[in-house]
Amino acid sequence: MEKKLIEVCFSPKDFSYFKDRFDVVVVIDVLRATSAICSAFQNGVKAVIPVETIEEANGYQNQGYLVGAERNGEIVSGFDFGNSPFSYLNPNLKGKEVVLSTTNGTRAIQLAAGAPHVLIGSLVNAESIIQKLAALNLNTVCLCSGWKDNFNLEDTICAGMIAESLIKNHNFTSNEDSTIAAKYLYLSAKDNYFGFLKSSSHRRRLKRLNLNEDIKYCLNPNQIHLVPILKGTKIVLDS
Amino acid sequence: MEKKLIEVCFSPKDFSYFKDRFDVVVVIDVLRATSAICSAFQNGVKAVIPVETIEEANGYQNQGYLVGAERNGEIVSGFDFGNSPFSYLNPNLKGKEVVLSTTNGTRAIQLAAGAPHVLIGSLVNAESIIQKLAALNLNTVCLCSGWKDNFNLEDTICAGMIAESLIKNHNFTSNEDSTIAAKYLYLSAKDNYFGFLKSSSHRRRLKRLNLNEDIKYCLNPNQIHLVPILKGTKIVLDS
Repeated sequence: MEKKLIEVCFSPKDFSYFKDRFDVVVVIDVLRATSAICSAFQNGVKAVIPVETIEEANGYQNQGYLVGAERNGEIVSGFDFGNSPFSYLNPNLKGKEVVLSTTNGTRAIQLAAGAPHVLIGSLVNAESIIQKLAALNLNTVCLCSGWKDNFNLEDTICAGMIAESLIKNHNFTSNEDSTIAAKYLYLSAKDNYFGFLKSSSHRRRLKRLNLNEDIKYCLNPNQIHLVPILKGTKIVLDS
Repeated sequence: MEKKLIEVCFSPKDFSYFKDRFDVVVVIDVLRATSAICSAFQNGVKAVIPVETIEEANGYQNQGYLVGAERNGEIVSGFDFGNSPFSYLNPNLKGKEVVLSTTNGTRAIQLAAGAPHVLIGSLVNAESIIQKLAALNLNTVCLCSGWKDNFNLEDTICAGMIAESLIKNHNFTSNEDSTIAAKYLYLSAKDNYFGFLKSSSHRRRLKRLNLNEDIKYCLNPNQIHLVPILKGTKIVLDS
């Protein structure tokens, strides 16, 4: 059986090289957008509507939606919450549609939107993502959201975990040096994500904002067993 | 004493983020442009003139210069040689000025050209580069030439070696996740570069062209003890 590709794209800036060659895009923003989306679905949210700009987020808020908006790690003034996973565990959100706009994650989701399949992945649901990708058995790229179009470690490590497992245990292979690098970075990090990422730029950024509990939550892998997918303009639970 | 920065830029496409913030740029193209430039100076070449286009290379050839031109791993038809380091060990080149145009390396050199100091680095002269950077003690970025604007492993590993040594043994620190990643990739690779890069995209590319001897030469670190630098439009030996 012909092997399928699993590749890693380090940041939205690099995505034009991968775009249109892959049937599945996994969008990854470990700290914290895609982790928060997973926690929202675990809490019974009906849909997450990702929007790129604060203006769009405002429009939804004026229509009565609950809206999360984050820029540079902080809640945007006037919105209900930011992108802390804990905000999305609020029982009031059950059964509701929630709107989310973040610095990096929602932009990556918009970029991926043209692909036949768009999955929302993070360390918290990595094993479920791997199982879903193995079942789909299609050419796949992991799109790391990065930080303002630059490479970041935590998204790359998550993508490396997914690539390593699919290549080792399933019908996948890779051609790109970025994928080899992501696999090795995952192998270097996997025994202690928290320690490995201690000096990463984004962890330092969030630490200044006293978000250590968020970081611990986001770096605790395979605690959520579901796969959010993009369907039209909304993220819903894969059924 | 305030620490200086050592950072790693994965490819020319990412360089705008680093440009103008660093006093020293180390241009790295392990397979094979910067390795070939080092071997040329070891052989007593007087200067290497890097040019970006085949048209410019042609112009120099018409003036009687010896000209190396490579595209996609192969010698461009009509030129004296490509970018194999072995071509530059030819005794006929001693004391001469040689022109060189390659797929990735010469483009990266042009991009770096505005910086106060531009050094030509590779695995073959990494230790000399490290000593030079420690002596300069200025904010430094390693610019990996990559492959057609994409990340590649071999340049990143070389940059990681330089960053690791400067941070561990000299007065340097780093802020960027790309630098942390390069350091870990170097540590994963350092006991066996040849084995580590076995599956890298560029090694596979060169292997198809029967360039295994070139690869072995380029991946043998610290065999050349000199530092080529860019001075105006020419690369000369640092004196």
